[in-house]
Amino acid sequence: MKVLRYEPADAMFERSPGQDADIFAANLVDQRQGGPITIGYGRYGPDQVLKTDIVVDDVMVVLEGRVSVESDGETLTAGPGEIIYMPKGTTVIIRSHEDGALTSYVTYPHWSEAE
Amino acid sequence: MKVLRYEPADAMFERSPGQDADIFAANLVDQRQGGPITIGYGRYGPDQVLKTDIVVDDVMVVLEGRVSVESDGETLTAGPGEIIYMPKGTTVIIRSHEDGALTSYVTYPHWSEAE
Repeated sequence: MKVLRYEPADAMFERSPGQDADIFAANLVDQRQGGPITIGYGRYGPDQVLKTDIVVDDVMVVLEGRVSVESDGETLTAGPGEIIYMPKGTTVIIRSHEDGALTSYVTYPHWSEAE
Repeated sequence: MKVLRYEPADAMFERSPGQDADIFAANLVDQRQGGPITIGYGRYGPDQVLKTDIVVDDVMVVLEGRVSVESDGETLTAGPGEIIYMPKGTTVIIRSHEDGALTSYVTYPHWSEAE
């Protein structure tokens, strides 16, 4: 595989599976290219909530807006340039705020295979 | 492991090993926490150059400034919110520009073990 570059305009957002909130994911690189990690952009409408089990190691870099992640009774909030790491095996409640959010994510292994 | 949050102020930057350019890395999560991926922040002074072999799958999310990556005769440039994916096995020349850059990176596996 060769070096690749992406920007948000490349993202083909689809509603994240198994939920009906305004939370969308766009894989840029995943198992289809044969590499070990998935790379993508995430987009959140305002004030959305998603409770989910994290089945892969999942790194979220917030690019716009803010995202809060509650787990084990603790809530962490990240804004632009900040990172939230959700290790495999955690259960989380992900919340966007009034401005929604744009994130980039990297997972190992491929989240869409592990769902 | 539990959900973790990081911001650039958490970064303990060290000059990236094996080179003397103003290019610094700060691992936030790596093999020491026992997970499979390394997460960190990268900082580049203005107009720095680094030629290196990529020995892990390496994802760079540009947060500030711009970074160009040349590989196989092609140069890709990313600004804030844009992503450069450097797959394992590629050889690259990484260049910062007049404003330097701040990036976040995720590698699989741990780059500092693979060096």
